[in-house]
Amino acid sequence: MQTFSKTIKLGIPKGSLQEYTIKIFKLAGFDINIPERGYFLRIDDPEIECFLLRPQEIPKYVEKGKLDLGISGDDWILESKAKIIEICDLKYAKQEIKKVKWVLTVSKDSKIKSIKDLEGKTISTEAVNLVKDYLKKNKVKAKVEFSWGAAEVKPPRFADAMVDITETGASLRAHNLKILDTILVSSTKLITNKTTWQDKWKKEKISDLALLLQGAVKGEEVINLMMHVPGEKLNRILKVLPKLKSPTIKKLTGENWYDVEISCKEKETRELIPKLKRMGCQGIVEWPVVKLIP
Amino acid sequence: MQTFSKTIKLGIPKGSLQEYTIKIFKLAGFDINIPERGYFLRIDDPEIECFLLRPQEIPKYVEKGKLDLGISGDDWILESKAKIIEICDLKYAKQEIKKVKWVLTVSKDSKIKSIKDLEGKTISTEAVNLVKDYLKKNKVKAKVEFSWGAAEVKPPRFADAMVDITETGASLRAHNLKILDTILVSSTKLITNKTTWQDKWKKEKISDLALLLQGAVKGEEVINLMMHVPGEKLNRILKVLPKLKSPTIKKLTGENWYDVEISCKEKETRELIPKLKRMGCQGIVEWPVVKLIP
Amino acid sequence: MQTFSKTIKLGIPKGSLQEYTIKIFKLAGFDINIPERGYFLRIDDPEIECFLLRPQEIPKYVEKGKLDLGISGDDWILESKAKIIEICDLKYAKQEIKKVKWVLTVSKDSKIKSIKDLEGKTISTEAVNLVKDYLKKNKVKAKVEFSWGAAEVKPPRFADAMVDITETGASLRAHNLKILDTILVSSTKLITNKTTWQDKWKKEKISDLALLLQGAVKGEEVINLMMHVPGEKLNRILKVLPKLKSPTIKKLTGENWYDVEISCKEKETRELIPKLKRMGCQGIVEWPVVKLIP
Amino acid sequence: MQTFSKTIKLGIPKGSLQEYTIKIFKLAGFDINIPERGYFLRIDDPEIECFLLRPQEIPKYVEKGKLDLGISGDDWILESKAKIIEICDLKYAKQEIKKVKWVLTVSKDSKIKSIKDLEGKTISTEAVNLVKDYLKKNKVKAKVEFSWGAAEVKPPRFADAMVDITETGASLRAHNLKILDTILVSSTKLITNKTTWQDKWKKEKISDLALLLQGAVKGEEVINLMMHVPGEKLNRILKVLPKLKSPTIKKLTGENWYDVEISCKEKETRELIPKLKRMGCQGIVEWPVVKLIP
Amino acid sequence: MQTFSKTIKLGIPKGSLQEYTIKIFKLAGFDINIPERGYFLRIDDPEIECFLLRPQEIPKYVEKGKLDLGISGDDWILESKAKIIEICDLKYAKQEIKKVKWVLTVSKDSKIKSIKDLEGKTISTEAVNLVKDYLKKNKVKAKVEFSWGAAEVKPPRFADAMVDITETGASLRAHNLKILDTILVSSTKLITNKTTWQDKWKKEKISDLALLLQGAVKGEEVINLMMHVPGEKLNRILKVLPKLKSPTIKKLTGENWYDVEISCKEKETRELIPKLKRMGCQGIVEWPVVKLIP
Amino acid sequence: MQTFSKTIKLGIPKGSLQEYTIKIFKLAGFDINIPERGYFLRIDDPEIECFLLRPQEIPKYVEKGKLDLGISGDDWILESKAKIIEICDLKYAKQEIKKVKWVLTVSKDSKIKSIKDLEGKTISTEAVNLVKDYLKKNKVKAKVEFSWGAAEVKPPRFADAMVDITETGASLRAHNLKILDTILVSSTKLITNKTTWQDKWKKEKISDLALLLQGAVKGEEVINLMMHVPGEKLNRILKVLPKLKSPTIKKLTGENWYDVEISCKEKETRELIPKLKRMGCQGIVEWPVVKLIP
Repeated sequence: MQTFSKTIKLGIPKGSLQEYTIKIFKLAGFDINIPERGYFLRIDDPEIECFLLRPQEIPKYVEKGKLDLGISGDDWILESKAKIIEICDLKYAKQEIKKVKWVLTVSKDSKIKSIKDLEGKTISTEAVNLVKDYLKKNKVKAKVEFSWGAAEVKPPRFADAMVDITETGASLRAHNLKILDTILVSSTKLITNKTTWQDKWKKEKISDLALLLQGAVKGEEVINLMMHVPGEKLNRILKVLPKLKSPTIKKLTGENWYDVEISCKEKETRELIPKLKRMGCQGIVEWPVVKLIP
Repeated sequence: MQTFSKTIKLGIPKGSLQEYTIKIFKLAGFDINIPERGYFLRIDDPEIECFLLRPQEIPKYVEKGKLDLGISGDDWILESKAKIIEICDLKYAKQEIKKVKWVLTVSKDSKIKSIKDLEGKTISTEAVNLVKDYLKKNKVKAKVEFSWGAAEVKPPRFADAMVDITETGASLRAHNLKILDTILVSSTKLITNKTTWQDKWKKEKISDLALLLQGAVKGEEVINLMMHVPGEKLNRILKVLPKLKSPTIKKLTGENWYDVEISCKEKETRELIPKLKRMGCQGIVEWPVVKLIP
Repeated sequence: MQTFSKTIKLGIPKGSLQEYTIKIFKLAGFDINIPERGYFLRIDDPEIECFLLRPQEIPKYVEKGKLDLGISGDDWILESKAKIIEICDLKYAKQEIKKVKWVLTVSKDSKIKSIKDLEGKTISTEAVNLVKDYLKKNKVKAKVEFSWGAAEVKPPRFADAMVDITETGASLRAHNLKILDTILVSSTKLITNKTTWQDKWKKEKISDLALLLQGAVKGEEVINLMMHVPGEKLNRILKVLPKLKSPTIKKLTGENWYDVEISCKEKETRELIPKLKRMGCQGIVEWPVVKLIP
Repeated sequence: MQTFSKTIKLGIPKGSLQEYTIKIFKLAGFDINIPERGYFLRIDDPEIECFLLRPQEIPKYVEKGKLDLGISGDDWILESKAKIIEICDLKYAKQEIKKVKWVLTVSKDSKIKSIKDLEGKTISTEAVNLVKDYLKKNKVKAKVEFSWGAAEVKPPRFADAMVDITETGASLRAHNLKILDTILVSSTKLITNKTTWQDKWKKEKISDLALLLQGAVKGEEVINLMMHVPGEKLNRILKVLPKLKSPTIKKLTGENWYDVEISCKEKETRELIPKLKRMGCQGIVEWPVVKLIP
Repeated sequence: MQTFSKTIKLGIPKGSLQEYTIKIFKLAGFDINIPERGYFLRIDDPEIECFLLRPQEIPKYVEKGKLDLGISGDDWILESKAKIIEICDLKYAKQEIKKVKWVLTVSKDSKIKSIKDLEGKTISTEAVNLVKDYLKKNKVKAKVEFSWGAAEVKPPRFADAMVDITETGASLRAHNLKILDTILVSSTKLITNKTTWQDKWKKEKISDLALLLQGAVKGEEVINLMMHVPGEKLNRILKVLPKLKSPTIKKLTGENWYDVEISCKEKETRELIPKLKRMGCQGIVEWPVVKLIP
Repeated sequence: MQTFSKTIKLGIPKGSLQEYTIKIFKLAGFDINIPERGYFLRIDDPEIECFLLRPQEIPKYVEKGKLDLGISGDDWILESKAKIIEICDLKYAKQEIKKVKWVLTVSKDSKIKSIKDLEGKTISTEAVNLVKDYLKKNKVKAKVEFSWGAAEVKPPRFADAMVDITETGASLRAHNLKILDTILVSSTKLITNKTTWQDKWKKEKISDLALLLQGAVKGEEVINLMMHVPGEKLNRILKVLPKLKSPTIKKLTGENWYDVEISCKEKETRELIPKLKRMGCQGIVEWPVVKLIP
């Protein structure tokens, strides 16, 4: 058992965000181990204590100071109404994590065609506060019931509508449901609380960690590109290069050729590489990036 | 889509009871199919409609009449405070389903040594009503917080105690927890509501189904045994046979030997077979049983 | 290598029928082993040689005498136009093998609404002869193209219609297709050829095997039922019992009770058992059957 | 932890015999659980303590009295030179366990053509004593080296010959090896020691267990058969029935038909059932057997 | 559903080439998703429509213009006799894809020793045209039968010879077959048709894609190498470096050392790195490459 | 079969070191294939012959010259008492391979509290010589028994203590054992013998291979870092950079900024990157390294 003085207590979200969170920590330089059965995670930094908790509970535990630092989604931060400090977004570009969308759905055959038609009806959802706030904003009065799961089976037999996360819509179609509205698009946040943030040592430790995590998130969508550029075209070519980071340019010895090295978004290479080739670049080499701190 | 008039709406519990429930229906003669992604189950009886729902929600839906028939545990029937009719217990003898025990646990190093020490403390649990009733019965006042999961990590950092299901205790030991009390041993129930039970057709249909399900549950722990018994020992041997069902006895043609066939609990054969052999029985044959209706 | 004189050369269908075929042989008393990589199967009967072949090719090889005995579907027997002798149907009652239905499908948005609209169009299928025969019967002229697979992607871009096997229809829905007609419902057949059938030893060997296989197929859907019947109700109860096989009835010694044992279809027990219970039967025991030869 | 007085200490062989051993105990009526990581097995009989041990070590531990009862093969009983009492053979008819054959193999291209050619050579094996005894019997002097595994790679580079278990010969072929001789065909034994056998309570407990295990082993290869026999053919038919157990014969009420029930080896049904059918039997039903105690 | 005007219709080969194809597209910057059940692939470029089709059918569909672009092997391009335009080879250096070799095989014991011996015999193959062309070239007349699979079981019972793909030869050995000749070594091609190629927009789009795919294929076998080179040895060392791309050379500030960066084939590093070390290079660093466009 | 003259015979350790060994060879540029069933490995270098052998046996075979080169642990080198030449350590930094620790353990309840208490006791272990040497060094006399496995079950019933490898200690806790002493921490070694080492060609071949393997081992824990450094801070920043390899520094054209590229241990980036950022570096990019030869 570790001692508790001067450590960062960190909450890792169990479930759909778990694998991605642990991967980003690894890219940031921290190995987190999940024991065979267990919620006390092992991390290879003695100044951090790591707990595996449901993302629903992390915001509240951060607010109360039981955790110094947590990772959770906008959805559960709002649902829990916890007062926390958002340090940064851990937005992930690649497909491993899709956008978390909370949608309001009814049966395809339902007479409910708009939000207004929900007046007096029953809505089943795991995020009761989220839905109540949404109804208030839309000036609709409806009954909101807590759902323990199996949301897709609810309308129309067990509730008039339901609100749940959808990723591809395939499950909705399979259950004869249609989307009436998207009530929240949630993304992943690194959060802390006021007390922790006022501790100088903790703030610096957390800030460094945030820098590395953001560097890893950025690195996921970026590659490095090096190319030989003919001297007479250097200026025209520099103009088309992306500005993620200033390029490294070097004249090749004894020739009117330059060597240019840049970082750019992987997706941009689809248009950039053919363009550079056509403009006269040669020896274009692309390699992977782990972290990018601009 | 099936028509809704004159069918039994049946709720099958998603999760730990699911596999066993579907197996018992199969033994009872009903095939239930779970589509690849989906909660509308297919059952090979056009008079039954089948829904996959969380066991937490089934009692309420049975109470409200959204379901005619449901399978759930005592725990969620009590937690939901639903007014339902218990038709029968689906107690399962074999090891596939272990006893569901709700235990009150604290950290091994905790100063909380008895229920009384919980006064003023915080308890984390998924079954808030169950724990509140338990505290009331024990005349203890404590704060009960809803837990979204990861219960083992709660004491002592996130709560003073927690109440959750345990099966083997291995997870408790791994998280440095100890059991203070068992607050409920839950078993699986077949439940209906008053309105359904007053419909003559539905009551008969459900009663037949209950008979078959109970026959299948019984059949799981029973085998058939046939043996040749020497005439002079018949009476003594008949006395040691179990009385699950009256035995079928037949004199073998032209000999002073009898053929006796019984049903008995599989576990009893461990002592019964050697005893019968010693008492002079021969040609003892054991075969499996699917259903037994006494 | 086995010697080739006086053995039955048997073709086992590779693919969707394979697992079921091997299971039925096992129930019939024959173990077939599939070596890690290999088409020469091992069977524990030295008088049989076993080959794993595509069901498409088995009928032709039986016709030519390269096989004495084969298992294949009606579909490939018709498609191959092989002249063979059908010994028996191996119809399988349980869900492990679903009905093989060849359906004609077009895009949901297609202007083709009936078979007649196929005139002059292109149809993609793996069973070219089957489709040609079907078109001839319906007096429609259309182009039939051999399909190597991925049939669902064909209409409307790569062909106007396609004919393929469907099981649940889920794949059709996923590809925006609808069924215009079912052109064949195929079942599994045990087949031989004239020359083999004229060999006395082979005919007897094959007939015995067919008897056992059919017994195993039957056994799959049948169970045994034993019950105690009160003497005064014996006649009325005997009347409601299924007639799969004549019942075994025995008077219990010294009492006006009878012991009745029958075989019946498993699905019938759903109605039969509650009825028997209501009519006064006691100690109803059900057990599984491996083979039933009526 | 269980107490040690008056329990049977039982050694279960880890490895290739493990799964079969646990299955036979289950059929005999005893459930053995292997914890996730662990060698202290749980068995549902408080009078038995169960340990998972390598079959190589079980005979010695039985001899020394550290175990009362063990399961191991002839091979390791001989190799260990342990003085133990063989209670019975647990010979298994079905294919799950193949015969354990220890073979002497050399490279296909080796000049070693017979045992005599091994004079002065090196043999690699895991069963050093077994091979030494074999060489002595054959009056050949050769060096026997203990092998830690990967036996097939040994000849010809790392040893001149090797002795190891083979099942199908496929691995031998793949390593260009050929068999020179089979030095042992091993089967599974239930063993105890003198001291345990002299304890009256232990001897009875073990004898009962042996009876049940043998009944389960027998049951694996046996089925039950019931048939209707025409009265005039009863005697002729009784003559062709196997004598595993005396048949149960009963005259059907009011008809000249008899009901005959027998147990027979499953493999015999391949010839028996067609013969019975031809001799006039009807309603032949076969069902599975769990245990048979003759 | 996407609109069909001005998109590239692309055929991805289902089966053995599928995984590699999707990987190369990913490295080229395009993510292709295969839905759970489905042939309409999703690609993250709205100007491309993606279909999963058997490689046997892709050449014909490209020829007819139902696809603008396809990936298939030489084997099926030749077999289908489709008139298409080969854009480039997608030759893959690493082991994930082995060479596709079509071999002519007969039974080891066959009297057929050379191609000439096939005169009048029967050959079973999935690539009928390929084999007919081969026979014509060799002036041999033989019957070529379409094979639906299980090719290795064909000779000698079901055909005199067979032609099929082999990778390691292990399956041939297991079926007692030997190779008589290799009739084709096939590689993967990117193909289009004349009409598509005359559309300026399509040609440019496809050319860019081809450039990226070839860059990714090249990148698979290439790495980047950077080293410190002592000034006096620079010229000698530059001579031994591979010429895949002109090296990037830079004098280190204030020292007579140079920094040299090259791309080279990964396999060449086995000899190159020890040589460079011996020649006096220091700080040799190797890193992976994603794409290389020379 | 390969010819044996002038090749390096290489022993690859089967078991826990196998996967890591093959991975390091791959990073070093050599692909090793393990055939489906087989110990003759295929390596894509015709000058190397590869055998899969137990690590216990490799040192002896290297000593005898049956292998030129082998990979094994200190533990088995010492246990076998083989006279070999250690070429280098293949220490692996990442978590895939944990430290191999041989520990002396007794039952938690044992009266044995120190090594001295082992006098006259029995110790079970797979490494008999290792334990004997350890006892001699500690001047304790005890009986050492060879263990075939299942070491954790041995104390206290089957032996007084045991010596075995432990990784996490979880298995020890599960079996109620405690560690008394660590008798060896083993690491992986590349070994050869005197005769091989005197052959000039073999020595050079092996030395090159060792260079590449060590480069790959180093590369596993290292990354490359490139950053833009403001000219006025260049010297201060160069001082904090790790000295794994001299940095590559280049002035950016026309600006008072420098581009600095270094290799550093991945774990160091956790502190280095935030520090560099605070000191004014920009555009910090990190990428992976395959090999590093200093």
